[in-house]
Amino acid sequence: MAVLVPFAADNPKTRLEKALESAERADFARAMLRDVCETVAATGREPTVLATAPVDVPHPVVVDDRPLTEAVNARLEPPTAVVMADLALATPTAVERLFAPDADVVLAPGLGGGTNAAVVRHDAFAFDYHGVSIRDHRRRAREAGADLATVDSFRLAVDVDEPRDLVEVLLHGNGRGREWLRDAGFDAVATDGRVEARRGR
Amino acid sequence: MAVLVPFAADNPKTRLEKALESAERADFARAMLRDVCETVAATGREPTVLATAPVDVPHPVVVDDRPLTEAVNARLEPPTAVVMADLALATPTAVERLFAPDADVVLAPGLGGGTNAAVVRHDAFAFDYHGVSIRDHRRRAREAGADLATVDSFRLAVDVDEPRDLVEVLLHGNGRGREWLRDAGFDAVATDGRVEARRGR
Repeated sequence: MAVLVPFAADNPKTRLEKALESAERADFARAMLRDVCETVAATGREPTVLATAPVDVPHPVVVDDRPLTEAVNARLEPPTAVVMADLALATPTAVERLFAPDADVVLAPGLGGGTNAAVVRHDAFAFDYHGVSIRDHRRRAREAGADLATVDSFRLAVDVDEPRDLVEVLLHGNGRGREWLRDAGFDAVATDGRVEARRGR
Repeated sequence: MAVLVPFAADNPKTRLEKALESAERADFARAMLRDVCETVAATGREPTVLATAPVDVPHPVVVDDRPLTEAVNARLEPPTAVVMADLALATPTAVERLFAPDADVVLAPGLGGGTNAAVVRHDAFAFDYHGVSIRDHRRRAREAGADLATVDSFRLAVDVDEPRDLVEVLLHGNGRGREWLRDAGFDAVATDGRVEARRGR
């Protein structure tokens, strides 16, 4: 099965700008991308990076500068899986749970209405990552007559978009993403009722 | 096995104050509490609400006005489970995953460093909900010589503390909590790159 790992190579992770400089965001994003690709590879599948511009990683890369939805749907030949490049908590065990259900469409919801990972085995299903994508994808599966399975995984639900997500990487990550944050001086610190990623140096 | 469901009955859910009035927060918190108790009961176990003040629910209630850590540890006779009262996405299937591992300590991490649910079968383990509790609980399990299992569940990881959590209830909840939000006029709306819970009336 093809496993696409979409990656926004130009100015990635802009919503982390309050926590990281531009060059840091690019570096951290690539660290997470490599983690995700290795995690997919550890399940015995070959990931293909679907990038908006060339990116230097030890995995096959296809460049398509169209928006995410168009670029993914252009390569959607069932069976195909899509795993986002910023799932810094993903483990081989969590990714195996995505592939386990014998359903036409398998969805792993992301926090905030996203669809962080999916498997498509049905010809009439296409992605729409705009808007409330998890809701739209459930509806699209229904309308396509596809049976749907949902993966209940914290590790697949956390995508790293905003500063508040960094603490999840620090506490639960175990790859380059976490290592990058630690090297950059971040640590998980308890404040008044919250835990957040603070940079010590 | 005893299943404790801690509930802050006095002025609950203060961090939702930007989204809900005080009386609404109390109402919504009780709706979620009832959902969690019914979900636990649906797995064949009897929940006991451990509340800081009397609360009217059709389940056994024990009142203890001490802080969470002290109140829970005072009743920690292994085997005991603790399931937070604001897990509005919890389903019987997700809760069964908490009870499935045959480990001395089972932890379900919450977003932001919390520990949203746990099973304790070891005498030397005690809770500490202050600070980065998931990190502390992992350490405590290690120090107690207890073997540890972790449940990778999105449904158990989302506790409803802040306005941003409401969208998860709208999109993935299926009990009184979601119904309460819908009746109050909330809907999941896509904004610029984000999905949030907006109140329409």
